[in-house]
Amino acid sequence: MAVFHRPTLLLDEAICRKNIKKMVAKAQRNTVRFRPHFKTHQSQEIARWFRQEGVNAITVSSVAMAQYFAEDGWKDITIAFPVNLHEIQMINDLADKIQLNLLVESLESIHFLDQKLSHAVHCLLKVDLGYGRTGIDCNNLDLIDAILQSIASSKMMQFVGFLGHAGQSYSARSVEHIRAVHQQSIKMILGLKAHYQSNYPNLQLSVGDTPTCSRAEDFGGVDEIRPGNFVFYDVTQHFIGSNTLEEIAVAMTCPIVARHSQREEIIIYGGGAHFSKDRIEDPRGKTIFGLVVENRALGWGPIIPGAYVKKLSQEHGTIHLPATHFGRYQVGDWVTILPVHSCMCANLMKAYWTTAGQKIDRL
Amino acid sequence: MAVFHRPTLLLDEAICRKNIKKMVAKAQRNTVRFRPHFKTHQSQEIARWFRQEGVNAITVSSVAMAQYFAEDGWKDITIAFPVNLHEIQMINDLADKIQLNLLVESLESIHFLDQKLSHAVHCLLKVDLGYGRTGIDCNNLDLIDAILQSIASSKMMQFVGFLGHAGQSYSARSVEHIRAVHQQSIKMILGLKAHYQSNYPNLQLSVGDTPTCSRAEDFGGVDEIRPGNFVFYDVTQHFIGSNTLEEIAVAMTCPIVARHSQREEIIIYGGGAHFSKDRIEDPRGKTIFGLVVENRALGWGPIIPGAYVKKLSQEHGTIHLPATHFGRYQVGDWVTILPVHSCMCANLMKAYWTTAGQKIDRL
Repeated sequence: MAVFHRPTLLLDEAICRKNIKKMVAKAQRNTVRFRPHFKTHQSQEIARWFRQEGVNAITVSSVAMAQYFAEDGWKDITIAFPVNLHEIQMINDLADKIQLNLLVESLESIHFLDQKLSHAVHCLLKVDLGYGRTGIDCNNLDLIDAILQSIASSKMMQFVGFLGHAGQSYSARSVEHIRAVHQQSIKMILGLKAHYQSNYPNLQLSVGDTPTCSRAEDFGGVDEIRPGNFVFYDVTQHFIGSNTLEEIAVAMTCPIVARHSQREEIIIYGGGAHFSKDRIEDPRGKTIFGLVVENRALGWGPIIPGAYVKKLSQEHGTIHLPATHFGRYQVGDWVTILPVHSCMCANLMKAYWTTAGQKIDRL
Repeated sequence: MAVFHRPTLLLDEAICRKNIKKMVAKAQRNTVRFRPHFKTHQSQEIARWFRQEGVNAITVSSVAMAQYFAEDGWKDITIAFPVNLHEIQMINDLADKIQLNLLVESLESIHFLDQKLSHAVHCLLKVDLGYGRTGIDCNNLDLIDAILQSIASSKMMQFVGFLGHAGQSYSARSVEHIRAVHQQSIKMILGLKAHYQSNYPNLQLSVGDTPTCSRAEDFGGVDEIRPGNFVFYDVTQHFIGSNTLEEIAVAMTCPIVARHSQREEIIIYGGGAHFSKDRIEDPRGKTIFGLVVENRALGWGPIIPGAYVKKLSQEHGTIHLPATHFGRYQVGDWVTILPVHSCMCANLMKAYWTTAGQKIDRL
């Protein structure tokens, strides 16, 4: 086994591969293309676990990520982020080598791309499926028409379909709620297909967020799903209703540096610089920054009821441990924690250690 | 000028150097040692700006930071974090080369260090000055006595004093409130000096957080101050009452990727992966993730009233811009933002660009 000195992000490869296989199977059952979002793991090595399951098209959220995965042989990449005009040089370099799919949602972007693209790309129109973050309003057919016309007159751009992200699923707190979001958002994007498919018979619909892809069973009419977080899951997704705690594939292990028995708190080396400051309200309304699990020689065990990360500053974490468990944790021991948001935690940690002791790098 | 492609952390060197000089002058006026905390900037180059002002003793919050600054010639470093026993090898390596000062707050740590230290270190007892995060309760004289006795019988450890961090100053929202926290916390640590100075006539008191060091004027009886964030300041410190907006030395500049005129929102490339998810309530109770300033060719101008970062996801930021300014910002333009928490933002960005176009690296 590896010997750790500092806060370390553990990865249970078996759980992770199971999450991947389950989503692959769901996509096959529903005959939709599975184009997983790789922003969560950002690792060429973990990406290969997807390739072993037959995945060959992926999603990322930055040009840098697209470059990183293209370097490892991925040939069909969607950058699911409104195109950043300042990265046109890198976009052209990528479009020269792979099938690059860009998101557009404004005429300004289209005009810029029309002038600056030197290689062919596919364009997806980013539409708002009720989340309200970004994307064209599905009812704004004038703008959609104008954009489609501009794309049609461009040499380097080809319109391939509509893409949406029903991020409002993150406010769900039950499977029923997730499924209601799914039905509503699917209905919106299917409406666009119905309207435009006579002129664009091959137009594709792409949706995908971890809650709906984990819990919905009907993807009728949709061509592609793009979930990302499901590869690891986390405490937030568990509270939303996306996964069981046993499906969470990553955990932080952190050394104890101080104990405060009167208030049943331990202080770990592990703070916002490791976990991020993402937080969530547990079902009782208490704000938490992580849940504590039992330590195991290889990986981790079940949740310790009542134990949680109460507070994070830059390097310190404050953990509440119930009286039943407090005596078992001494200064110098390790505490293992399921993160509230695995994407942000992994982004800070920059490497994984599998429970078998292997280091896995990432972007 | 540098050409940026992605979210970039700007640093105004003139403001930063002014913040440093002001704190140096305050320490001199009060005849206290200035041992700045370098966890905010984590940059050897910015550290040299302190050295140019005569600073030669510093504070860090991890062994890794201590190594990084020791490599650039810093010879007197306090790791202001309860000692992490798993890094004993690196601690010994450092203690061989520099004056290393460790924080202890438990007998377990003392016993471990007594057995494992191969080179001499100074020990500071971490005491709780009312913040309630970590440190020994100032009234727990039995534990303090026991620790002092253990240190006294150790060959490699020398007790040099008490160290506290009145982090409750972060809940202040006025200069008066900051000063009240200061007076109360100073009184606690002075009480320890009064109790122990007959046995330890040279014992030192070290305090320091940015709010109290910025706003208090009386440090009577204290030997050392350790503020860190003041080097850049940020929106949180401004709301606390530590600094004016003009004293904030860093700002993020981010490209606009989408506009939503009906709701007066723009979407930037710049999210939790760049700013962190730290947030704060503004004086009207609205949760914000940053304040928007006017763009300038070199750096930035004043705040745009009513403009703020409303929401952050991993890569997206949502900015509200009032109608008066909305029309001035187009897709592809840049928006400049004062961060809510400069320490966490700089930790994610990993490099600074001065407003004169020079890149500055960090750990």
